[in-house]
Amino acid sequence: MASIDCVSLLTDYGLEDGFVAACHGVIARIAPSARVIDISHLVPPADVRRGAAILAQTVPYLPEGVHVAVVDPGVGTTRRAVAVAAGGRIFVGPDNGVLSWCVPDGGARAFELTNRDLWLAPTSATFHGRDIFAPVAAHLAAGLDITAVGTEFDAADLVTLPRPTRRVQEGTVDGEVLTVDRFGNVQLSVTAEDLRRIGAVTGVPLSFILGRRSITVPFRETFGAVPPGELVAFVDSAGCLALAVNAGNAAQRLGLPPGAHVRVGTALTSTH
Amino acid sequence: MASIDCVSLLTDYGLEDGFVAACHGVIARIAPSARVIDISHLVPPADVRRGAAILAQTVPYLPEGVHVAVVDPGVGTTRRAVAVAAGGRIFVGPDNGVLSWCVPDGGARAFELTNRDLWLAPTSATFHGRDIFAPVAAHLAAGLDITAVGTEFDAADLVTLPRPTRRVQEGTVDGEVLTVDRFGNVQLSVTAEDLRRIGAVTGVPLSFILGRRSITVPFRETFGAVPPGELVAFVDSAGCLALAVNAGNAAQRLGLPPGAHVRVGTALTSTH
Amino acid sequence: MASIDCVSLLTDYGLEDGFVAACHGVIARIAPSARVIDISHLVPPADVRRGAAILAQTVPYLPEGVHVAVVDPGVGTTRRAVAVAAGGRIFVGPDNGVLSWCVPDGGARAFELTNRDLWLAPTSATFHGRDIFAPVAAHLAAGLDITAVGTEFDAADLVTLPRPTRRVQEGTVDGEVLTVDRFGNVQLSVTAEDLRRIGAVTGVPLSFILGRRSITVPFRETFGAVPPGELVAFVDSAGCLALAVNAGNAAQRLGLPPGAHVRVGTALTSTH
Repeated sequence: MASIDCVSLLTDYGLEDGFVAACHGVIARIAPSARVIDISHLVPPADVRRGAAILAQTVPYLPEGVHVAVVDPGVGTTRRAVAVAAGGRIFVGPDNGVLSWCVPDGGARAFELTNRDLWLAPTSATFHGRDIFAPVAAHLAAGLDITAVGTEFDAADLVTLPRPTRRVQEGTVDGEVLTVDRFGNVQLSVTAEDLRRIGAVTGVPLSFILGRRSITVPFRETFGAVPPGELVAFVDSAGCLALAVNAGNAAQRLGLPPGAHVRVGTALTSTH
Repeated sequence: MASIDCVSLLTDYGLEDGFVAACHGVIARIAPSARVIDISHLVPPADVRRGAAILAQTVPYLPEGVHVAVVDPGVGTTRRAVAVAAGGRIFVGPDNGVLSWCVPDGGARAFELTNRDLWLAPTSATFHGRDIFAPVAAHLAAGLDITAVGTEFDAADLVTLPRPTRRVQEGTVDGEVLTVDRFGNVQLSVTAEDLRRIGAVTGVPLSFILGRRSITVPFRETFGAVPPGELVAFVDSAGCLALAVNAGNAAQRLGLPPGAHVRVGTALTSTH
Repeated sequence: MASIDCVSLLTDYGLEDGFVAACHGVIARIAPSARVIDISHLVPPADVRRGAAILAQTVPYLPEGVHVAVVDPGVGTTRRAVAVAAGGRIFVGPDNGVLSWCVPDGGARAFELTNRDLWLAPTSATFHGRDIFAPVAAHLAAGLDITAVGTEFDAADLVTLPRPTRRVQEGTVDGEVLTVDRFGNVQLSVTAEDLRRIGAVTGVPLSFILGRRSITVPFRETFGAVPPGELVAFVDSAGCLALAVNAGNAAQRLGLPPGAHVRVGTALTSTH
């Protein structure tokens, strides 16, 4: 299975310690020719939702491979450890929803990691990234068939995170803040398709209701289309509506944390 | 072109999100055998000058390859996307000066990236690192001739950043703060060659005029040559004069941000 | 020596600058087929002890290879630069103790790096990671015999850091805080073996004396075994006793920095 010899890693382990390197080392020992791509290790600790969003937005650009995601506040408790085959890829991690936005509603196969022969021994209770997920992923990357990792179960029983809110009605879209990136750009759950349905067109401003505030913002191709310091709405590189301040920080300006509710309409729509 | 199968990446994308990984993934899919070296992804957002400085100081130590630099506040606007062949290397990025300190005054060939067949489709307006620069770089690393990336233009028309100030006269050198590194070491635009011209010799203290202040500092081989907590001047690993506090932070101590003006003389020189 | 073609890097260089990339580049030019694993580059500046702890806890999970550790406040002074062969691995770095917790008391061979033919020329006084350690490590990874790096000396003369305090007596263990990780988990120098000797058993609470405070904490397999917000003691993935707050930060809660003294007993023991 030379086509699946890429392993990607997403964790909340941070980069100060040797945790990520230990996972790399375990993989290198089991699958020396695997290519490892780090998605991010700076997911905020235990922020499963944020991990799920980054994974789902990044994986489409990676080679088909084994994708390990470990944001795992329940490590060592009764939550399952799983491998899920879907769409030519294999996802490995805790069954707490972090994988769920990558798994389609049908056609996936799910396995509980029960084959301890693949794990490091001894197996710690708190570092399953190193002791369970990395070695299992490496064996898969080295060609092991997924049926060998453990017991198959119905993929419909996988834990799923609720999808982000997005509801189109009466010319407006209700959505929520999905993520805030390094630049302070605020990514919403509202998609380009939603915008099309409410008749939004690049060049015509959008109205936003953010809590009690209402603002109208230019809707452009990119943040660079407005002068520095000005707010702008655009469809971002993941296909989501985003708010930015050119050469500034929209999240700070607007005080919009992940999860905050937003209503969007065209400037011509009554958004109330 | 096996000799150019190394791709290096410098961005201001940060490490919290999946942006860097998406670039890695795109490269791995197009050029599976390319080696990718991350120069840094923590360039302060939109700090083109800092990106240019890091790139120019690091590239000489990398294998000849394709060097991608994306500090790109103008992404999606009219700024050109370019590939520049110079000195056996190829530089890829926005034409905003970030590449300019790596491009010699003569002998370079410049191409505007206009061949959309090499780009990801659809191409976002805000993530050209993933959609344009990474795939073009990967194709180049995989052996594509640079003439295939787009339209050649006169390399003299590339946008260039002003070179850092450095002027030798009357036994002193005027310069500026180039960068401040993690240790708080203050790197100046003054070079070892400039120091030779004003007669500075290791072991003989240097005088600095920093704004209204004047200080005299030991000039040594390394910061470890003075006791902990003391200021020292030395020629750093990039060949620039630098100020450090042994086991401390010179930038904080002196309040010297990038761009600050500095005059340097030997302690025997009148620096006024 | 194909079995040793892995090079690992541990430094305090940070990720903002191009320092780490320069080391990668130097290695790639000398040993193009070497695999490089970054252990961490976020060791607090000049914190030799923290670097030594991360190195010693991570290396056992890496392929046998050349392990470079550069936390080097004395760079350019009289401290030796060394390569040490021990247990099928080679450690390269300054002789200031950063390697010492990886080097067994007997059976190691130590060499001072004196063969300047292996170094970059010119050799800076302040960036030996790039100019000395990386190229020497790369030559070793490419198959150079360690005897070629310089002059052998008695490994007993290597600088060693004091081992962390741990003393078992009268049913208690005295130890100290070894590290605090990203999650605020407080790792102690007390080992699972020490706990066995004082009769501690998972499920029976432990008592801690921290300065003038005395607390009793559940002793469980993992932090997830207690409700969110509660303190818990567990044996961590390095085999050390650790204190955590489930879904919280124990280091902040307890005000315990590295080096702080701790006494541990079973809840049934008088810990005074």
